Amino acid sequence: MFNPSDHPHRRYNPLMDEWVLVSPHRAKRPWQGQQEAVDRAAKPAHDPDCYLCAGNTRVNGEHNPPYEGTYVFTNDFAALTSDTPEAAPGDDPLFQTMSARGTSRVICFSPDHSKSLPLLELPAIEGVINAWCEQSEELGAKHRWVQVFENKGAVMGCSNPHPHGQIWATSFLPVLPATEDTRQRAYFAEHGKPLLLDYVEREAADGERVVVATEYWLAVVPYWASWPFETVLLPRFPVKRLEDLDTAQRADLALALQQLTIRYDNLFQSSFPYSMGWHGAPYDSNDATPWQLHAHFYPPLLRSASVRKFMVGFEMLAETQRDLTPEQAAAQLRAVSGVHYLNDPA
Amino acid sequence: MFNPSDHPHRRYNPLMDEWVLVSPHRAKRPWQGQQEAVDRAAKPAHDPDCYLCAGNTRVNGEHNPPYEGTYVFTNDFAALTSDTPEAAPGDDPLFQTMSARGTSRVICFSPDHSKSLPLLELPAIEGVINAWCEQSEELGAKHRWVQVFENKGAVMGCSNPHPHGQIWATSFLPVLPATEDTRQRAYFAEHGKPLLLDYVEREAADGERVVVATEYWLAVVPYWASWPFETVLLPRFPVKRLEDLDTAQRADLALALQQLTIRYDNLFQSSFPYSMGWHGAPYDSNDATPWQLHAHFYPPLLRSASVRKFMVGFEMLAETQRDLTPEQAAAQLRAVSGVHYLNDPA
Ligand SMILES: O=P(O)(O)O[C@H]1O[C@H](CO)[C@@H](O)[C@H](O)[C@H]1O
Ligand SMILES: O=P(O)(O)O[C@H]1O[C@H](CO)[C@@H](O)[C@H](O)[C@H]1O
Repeated sequence: MFNPSDHPHRRYNPLMDEWVLVSPHRAKRPWQGQQEAVDRAAKPAHDPDCYLCAGNTRVNGEHNPPYEGTYVFTNDFAALTSDTPEAAPGDDPLFQTMSARGTSRVICFSPDHSKSLPLLELPAIEGVINAWCEQSEELGAKHRWVQVFENKGAVMGCSNPHPHGQIWATSFLPVLPATEDTRQRAYFAEHGKPLLLDYVEREAADGERVVVATEYWLAVVPYWASWPFETVLLPRFPVKRLEDLDTAQRADLALALQQLTIRYDNLFQSSFPYSMGWHGAPYDSNDATPWQLHAHFYPPLLRSASVRKFMVGFEMLAETQRDLTPEQAAAQLRAVSGVHYLNDPA
Repeated sequence: MFNPSDHPHRRYNPLMDEWVLVSPHRAKRPWQGQQEAVDRAAKPAHDPDCYLCAGNTRVNGEHNPPYEGTYVFTNDFAALTSDTPEAAPGDDPLFQTMSARGTSRVICFSPDHSKSLPLLELPAIEGVINAWCEQSEELGAKHRWVQVFENKGAVMGCSNPHPHGQIWATSFLPVLPATEDTRQRAYFAEHGKPLLLDYVEREAADGERVVVATEYWLAVVPYWASWPFETVLLPRFPVKRLEDLDTAQRADLALALQQLTIRYDNLFQSSFPYSMGWHGAPYDSNDATPWQLHAHFYPPLLRSASVRKFMVGFEMLAETQRDLTPEQAAAQLRAVSGVHYLNDPA
């Protein structure tokens, strides 16, 4: 008889209209390949060589102010420019170009070099959330899309361990949110309710994939997760964008973020790398009713702090593949302590 | 005025119906992040500890025969099984599963541990091509899709430097070829010609993105490339699947593969990592006329043998982004020697 914890199968991602191949029996294979550097030690509160610490000098010679909470500035090597000239429209279906406008900003989470999200106090995490909300609102007034995200860890291309994230705003709706937009609209048209609001209710009732549950928020390993310990952080109430969150929902989000990232760090007793980011309703003229705000966490690690999942070969050419079930991943994340290992006297 | 070598813009990938953000000015930013291990040295022809060398013992205790050309065996930890039980169909749009059947095989390119594709003689490369063709035909008789691919280099999750690739055959059409199938059918319906046949003619005539041109084959950095030095290897004649290639086309393919991979190795004077793989018409009942066989090469390196492109953050949450134009990448690949640096007396 078919058993999803043993047998290869595919699961459907309704947000992306894509399948993922799950090969649970494959978790047993030995790994003789690349080992990642492990980031386990506590860091100093101030690093004189860090170009993000308060008061220090950046690559381009500018000085950071002696900031106390969060600090936002325009990326010194922004991938987007606000004054890109318009490209002439072409009529060749095989060679299509459009010009891209926008901006890229950096957001330092704290002046303290050592305090990644799971190590910040709740009021400081609320400060980060408020900055995300303000940036979204401000940039959303002039752009179709505002991507708030964080690359954490060297293995995720982060070149500076100082706790920080980025915000890229674009004149166009990028590929992945455009697909989520289409899928959420299609689901809403058929079921009369936002896809992710239906989904969060079912996951809360089931519980098997839940990692963190607070009053207003639920973090689950989605049924269709690609990355081994991928999670989606979902509001348990209808809300379209970051800036629409009220004070209580933001305070509770700080708690959910802290709980989730502490469990991540505790899983392999290391600073857990990931890319995370927020998806909310695009800033265009379409009706935003089908949209539900949510955050994706994409962590690369698979079996230990030094062995990652490689999304290569079959995954790049054919289809995403995972080696343990989402239910197994959620159980592992629930099993670790809710107290950060660096703060745990035990 | 808009200048694609300077200004941020998006390009359209007609094979995937996706856009990619190109930020050429960004290539100038300094890199202070992770450095990859560089694979530069020549290797021994036989490594007693390698589980793929001829005559050696594998992880599961089996012995490799004293093979002379290529050697194919079933993966000891296959992601797919041929006897997966059928999963009961569910009617919940948010929790959909289907069972997956198939097989995974490993193909050793040569008994010589030191000879990656660019270092093999032409007849040996032809041997690899013939094995790919035979495997496709044999597995295609029982599966909807046969994915021939190679993960090369530790940075691409390859855990053994012995030159080898993989073949995964599946009872279903995976996500990425399913999209290529849809797009090629749509283009054919509109233009009456295979998309990639139109494309290869235009690229051959233009020349700006061409890396290697032989009698029957063209390797170009596609107009919509995601990875910095991504290429697509295209037949200059209509052909649907690997096994349809005739002897002359296979011999010439060996030359094109050798030329392309030598240029890759010479770019940063190192064994150039990549994932590569073949896409041909699926083995199902649909008319295969719109399909054109092709190979994708996805190499991760960006600026040097030790600095890679990270597809993280904005790329995972919003849209693929690249830092140099495809034209600039093609020019760099054309500028290096066609003689492998390890064989170059100069
Ligand atoms: O089967 P291998 O070579 O051990 O594994 C490698 O290739 C597979 C197919 O591309 C990937 O799923 C794995 O993540 C990668 O490590
Ligand atoms: O801007 P950074 O942090 O230097 O760069 C990092 O994040 C960007 C956005 O996710 C990616 O495009 C880069 O590949 C990555 O190295």
